[in-house]
Amino acid sequence: MLYLDYAASSPIRPSALEVLKKSLAEDFANPLSFHKLGKDLHRKIEGCRRKFLEFLGGDVNDRWIFTSSATESNNTFIEGIGLEEGDTVLVSMADHPSVTVPAENLKTRNIPVKPIPLNSRGTIDKPGLLSLVDPSVKLVILTHVNNQCGSLIDGENLCREIKQKGDNLYIFVDAAQGFGKIPFSLKNWEVDGISISSHKIGGPKGIAGLYVKAGTPFSPLLYGGGQEDGLRASTPAAPLIFSFFEAAQEALDSIEASLSHVARLNRLTRQLLKEKIDDIEFPFPVESTSPYILMVILPGISSDIILRHLEQEDIFVSTSSACSSRVKGSHPVFTALHVPEKYHKFILRISFSHEIGEADIEIFARTLAEIYNDLARFLK
Amino acid sequence: MLYLDYAASSPIRPSALEVLKKSLAEDFANPLSFHKLGKDLHRKIEGCRRKFLEFLGGDVNDRWIFTSSATESNNTFIEGIGLEEGDTVLVSMADHPSVTVPAENLKTRNIPVKPIPLNSRGTIDKPGLLSLVDPSVKLVILTHVNNQCGSLIDGENLCREIKQKGDNLYIFVDAAQGFGKIPFSLKNWEVDGISISSHKIGGPKGIAGLYVKAGTPFSPLLYGGGQEDGLRASTPAAPLIFSFFEAAQEALDSIEASLSHVARLNRLTRQLLKEKIDDIEFPFPVESTSPYILMVILPGISSDIILRHLEQEDIFVSTSSACSSRVKGSHPVFTALHVPEKYHKFILRISFSHEIGEADIEIFARTLAEIYNDLARFLK
Repeated sequence: MLYLDYAASSPIRPSALEVLKKSLAEDFANPLSFHKLGKDLHRKIEGCRRKFLEFLGGDVNDRWIFTSSATESNNTFIEGIGLEEGDTVLVSMADHPSVTVPAENLKTRNIPVKPIPLNSRGTIDKPGLLSLVDPSVKLVILTHVNNQCGSLIDGENLCREIKQKGDNLYIFVDAAQGFGKIPFSLKNWEVDGISISSHKIGGPKGIAGLYVKAGTPFSPLLYGGGQEDGLRASTPAAPLIFSFFEAAQEALDSIEASLSHVARLNRLTRQLLKEKIDDIEFPFPVESTSPYILMVILPGISSDIILRHLEQEDIFVSTSSACSSRVKGSHPVFTALHVPEKYHKFILRISFSHEIGEADIEIFARTLAEIYNDLARFLK
Repeated sequence: MLYLDYAASSPIRPSALEVLKKSLAEDFANPLSFHKLGKDLHRKIEGCRRKFLEFLGGDVNDRWIFTSSATESNNTFIEGIGLEEGDTVLVSMADHPSVTVPAENLKTRNIPVKPIPLNSRGTIDKPGLLSLVDPSVKLVILTHVNNQCGSLIDGENLCREIKQKGDNLYIFVDAAQGFGKIPFSLKNWEVDGISISSHKIGGPKGIAGLYVKAGTPFSPLLYGGGQEDGLRASTPAAPLIFSFFEAAQEALDSIEASLSHVARLNRLTRQLLKEKIDDIEFPFPVESTSPYILMVILPGISSDIILRHLEQEDIFVSTSSACSSRVKGSHPVFTALHVPEKYHKFILRISFSHEIGEADIEIFARTLAEIYNDLARFLK
């Protein structure tokens, strides 16, 4: 099997699986129980919480909340910041539905939501964004790495300039596709909230994290027994937390090596596919995208057909985000990214990992080219 | 080790652990991905969803939502039903914080929340409750098995009589401590929502469920990629779902055998402790409580001290709900249960499982009696 859909979900790392198995067997108590078993778990979870703040370059007074998914983290921050009628929110329509949908919902409460303009490279049109920052803007939602095309933000400069224009606003970054893959640090980013996911970096599904800078207004989404320092009620899923931590630690330890390896894979994929398929297009340049995600356009053959044919060869890629692929109709994300509508049904997303080798890419490129060129002869 | 804190959290069942390990290794795709790996997972999750509806005796048109915790399920139903200013909510202050806290929050939106009266057996004062049901009451929150004292509701009759008095109201039952332990079926209960938890029945932490009867108003708490039929966005945690399902299946297959076994353990515990500790009290009678939970009062010695001494003998019980035990101050739950305030600091909660044997109970009773009688000589 050749899995090239890592941006949808990644297999669990062997080390994270080992931690999880061990913890599932041993750490059965409730971390809020008063006895030693509970207290030991509680202490270990607090250790992980401090380490995640360190991973991000945050301050000890900042808050780190373990949630069940990046979707929960995004919903929690957007709801929890306490927006009121008249506050304006800026968000890109190319972002993941877990930020765009809760943002769009704000409109029903008379909170204007304005789209952040993008340029043809799929990255933020900075002058355009800055021109939208007026005193009513309270929340700017950014995405570190776009989940469809991999486009990156220049977090350091972008956040500083946004904050210079509006001093009473908060910046939230969905870093689900970036954390553990593209280095960044809050020491250089003026950011008030960040969400990250476990299963995108080889941790288990069902656990994620939310960073909230000290001093940021916050009210919880889940109320109850006062867990997570009163910020998110629910029995902490200790085994998932420890496994997530292991995956994050490992991803960060090898972040630079993995990044150069994956960048090589990305370049090789582009090169081999270009050689073999005349009319293939890569709408987004290598320079402004994460190498972990590569969008390709194969004109004239529906990507669903390509997907099925690849599947028969035990190769798995994506036609659009897993999180929206059962939503029928137009592709507002591709439109926001300035991909011409005539190409929307010809888009494949290939997403890589450190686990993939160059030989895999050669097999993939050869197979995809055979499938496409064969089909093109009959169908185009 | 002798763990008697199963109501706080249960060790994972060996069968559920096996399912989880296998699924963690194999089911790495995103269940929303369009390719075969995603679709196969999606289909398997839909199968589990139908089975959970069957487990509860629900209808195929009813909804079953996988959430991350019973706390999330409770918050989701209470928020999602769309209460408006002027609607009244009834809830018992003896219930778990994951229902009482979100309910209390409603007061800030001018939604009156009235306490359901209890009798001295810790069960619902039915005439008292029914007298509160006027046309303004839109939501009645019940708890199947109280997590502190084990008191049960007579769900079948209670729900019918509530529905007879108010035809425009919804009944929600927190069944986290009852599901898989005390048989019940929606075929006989007129209930509109139910929450259950995985880790209370030997499934993994981080997964739970919410039942919503067809036709019940509902809006999601988490918005995004349209998962769970648009009712709860987030990548479904497939391995956790399958393991939760296995635990539920196994718990239900042996529910009657486990119940009689645990009832024997409960009676034996009461009998042995009564024989060995003169002034011990069991404030709640066997007849109106789940045998899985036993509240005892050991007058004169702080339960924290008892807990520490038991801990030194590798025995683990609870002094109050794990979910509120880090909340300092008075014990509103014990007050609501009519436990005299002078006893609040002398309360232990012992909670059982099918895994415990009679020999364990003998060791526990002997050890607890030695500890208490020794301490009583010096401290009382």
